[in-house]
Amino acid sequence: MAPAAVVETLTVELDERSYPILIGGGLLQDGAVLGRNVPGRDLLVVTNTTVAPLYSRALAQGLPDRRIVEAVLPDGESHKTLATVSRLLDVLVANRFGRDATIIALGGGVVGDMAGFAGACYQRGVAYVQIPTTLLAQVDSSVGGKTGVNHPGGKNLIGAFHQPVAVIADTATLATLPDRELRAGLAEVVKYGLIRDAAFFAWLEENMDRLLAREPSALAKAIRRSCEIKAEIVGRDEREHGERALLNLGHTFGHAIESATGYAGWLHGEAVGAGIAMAAAMSRACGTLQPEQVARVRALLERAGLPTAASDVRAAAALEHMRMDKKVKAGRIRLVLLRGIGDAFVTGDYADDALRTTVAAHCA
Amino acid sequence: MAPAAVVETLTVELDERSYPILIGGGLLQDGAVLGRNVPGRDLLVVTNTTVAPLYSRALAQGLPDRRIVEAVLPDGESHKTLATVSRLLDVLVANRFGRDATIIALGGGVVGDMAGFAGACYQRGVAYVQIPTTLLAQVDSSVGGKTGVNHPGGKNLIGAFHQPVAVIADTATLATLPDRELRAGLAEVVKYGLIRDAAFFAWLEENMDRLLAREPSALAKAIRRSCEIKAEIVGRDEREHGERALLNLGHTFGHAIESATGYAGWLHGEAVGAGIAMAAAMSRACGTLQPEQVARVRALLERAGLPTAASDVRAAAALEHMRMDKKVKAGRIRLVLLRGIGDAFVTGDYADDALRTTVAAHCA
Repeated sequence: MAPAAVVETLTVELDERSYPILIGGGLLQDGAVLGRNVPGRDLLVVTNTTVAPLYSRALAQGLPDRRIVEAVLPDGESHKTLATVSRLLDVLVANRFGRDATIIALGGGVVGDMAGFAGACYQRGVAYVQIPTTLLAQVDSSVGGKTGVNHPGGKNLIGAFHQPVAVIADTATLATLPDRELRAGLAEVVKYGLIRDAAFFAWLEENMDRLLAREPSALAKAIRRSCEIKAEIVGRDEREHGERALLNLGHTFGHAIESATGYAGWLHGEAVGAGIAMAAAMSRACGTLQPEQVARVRALLERAGLPTAASDVRAAAALEHMRMDKKVKAGRIRLVLLRGIGDAFVTGDYADDALRTTVAAHCA
Repeated sequence: MAPAAVVETLTVELDERSYPILIGGGLLQDGAVLGRNVPGRDLLVVTNTTVAPLYSRALAQGLPDRRIVEAVLPDGESHKTLATVSRLLDVLVANRFGRDATIIALGGGVVGDMAGFAGACYQRGVAYVQIPTTLLAQVDSSVGGKTGVNHPGGKNLIGAFHQPVAVIADTATLATLPDRELRAGLAEVVKYGLIRDAAFFAWLEENMDRLLAREPSALAKAIRRSCEIKAEIVGRDEREHGERALLNLGHTFGHAIESATGYAGWLHGEAVGAGIAMAAAMSRACGTLQPEQVARVRALLERAGLPTAASDVRAAAALEHMRMDKKVKAGRIRLVLLRGIGDAFVTGDYADDALRTTVAAHCA
């Protein structure tokens, strides 16, 4: 067994559904951490063709004396469908897994969303553990219990709220992450600063080069602060009746880009990056954000190597897909806008013209 | 609008998810009741080819000023699959229904289970209303929030807990119910007496002929008492961590019959009837039930016209399917047995020989 890693622990406080987020280098190889945080004897490890060769052996070695079945999915958002989850359910049934089985999501956000949704539906709910291996999953998608799949008509339209029993974020996995995936994850990190924490945003402005150079201490700080903000908000509003909607900053625009391009070509985080730029521009159009603040947002996204527009998406298509977003209420698209750096709000009160103009300025 | 019906109201107490069960003759035509209890403007009415011609027009007339889309499914348990629910989700997306849409289940247990599961998964959860039109659905499946579909490997293996916002049981619909469906519903009614209420069981012994003759006052009493017992138990143990498992009396055996016969040939309530007979016999084999009590159980099931054995199922197949039941814990099948009329308990502590012998005596 590898030597024990330095572990930071946060908690998502949800009464009897509370769970720990463990953050540290080498956790995937730490049998003691795995043993304590993965319940059950029968385990289904859901992973993909990219991640499996890198980490699935280490994970299995850290969980001796368990019955482990592995489901290796094709990589990519375009496979995040009900048909793929149906295959996972078939594997669970074929192996006669019971209600006391545990599903482990080993991979990025796509793997986590599908493994979690399978966990939500199998036998009306079994335990699952998130072991995120991308920056995006470590700072965002593995925390908070949103699970689900895409529908050709819209992003994440099918799914469930189902909290994991633990999130184990091994920061050492970021060493093997492609640059493009690292940048995609940084879009969500920038989001946390923007919605809630101006000081964190300023820290990102100062430390973006260290993050892109993958300095472990900088990455650890970004992950911890992101998870702290997410855990706080989810703890107060698990099912997104209010405050949690702030976490969708950039996502209504971003989901439209992903849907309009068939979940291919754009990484989720890249679409969120462009979506944040559009949300900032829309905030400016609505008079809530100053031009120099918009410039800071765009500059940070650009330094992170993220797109700030979607030149391969027609504006009309983007608007059409936005209308299918889950945040539509009584026919009106609800937007997350900015009053300042670190101060986001949700509103349905804006001029339709401003929205059309903003989308047109960022699309083809 | 038809004159207001006499309505009895029970409540399933689940804090912010509490909801009413309305029981009465003619509720389906009562615009005031429908208007008060069906939220939302956009409604998806899920029904089947048998029920739609009888009631869907009346329902639509009782809900003017709504946007109603109807999904008419093929009738029968063999269609209760993930593929059918996927079609319902397609209809919701195609009609651009948002999170504020409501799904209405108009039909029996199969329709209710699938409409509820679609409601659980669409946009991570939308409201649904149960309008049960069979006795079985009125006394059992429409109450309590269990939703889901069958898998070739087992009954209800895929699903979610998702409570309706209202249950509207129009007892007048029982007038059009085929005799065989009426009897199937009575199996669940008998179950409530057996698990919890000896006096109700005795009342059923005295009034079975009135029930079979569809005397409205007798049916109303049977439905009300059944719903009361179910509402109490669900209110105390929504997610079946304990007491709620008692409601599965006869169901582990029954589900095995349904699975082994491919969800065709047997109605769910018929399989539960045979399952109750087997549970009583198993209780006798375990020494907890007296022979004369077993005889009372069998006699009441027979008077209700229900099967008390499954001569078209091989014993080995039944046992095999029981092992995939959701109530299996750590590899052991948990059974609901009887200590007496009105006194059920859950146990994994029994002789395997007794189980094999009991199943063999009731199967081919």
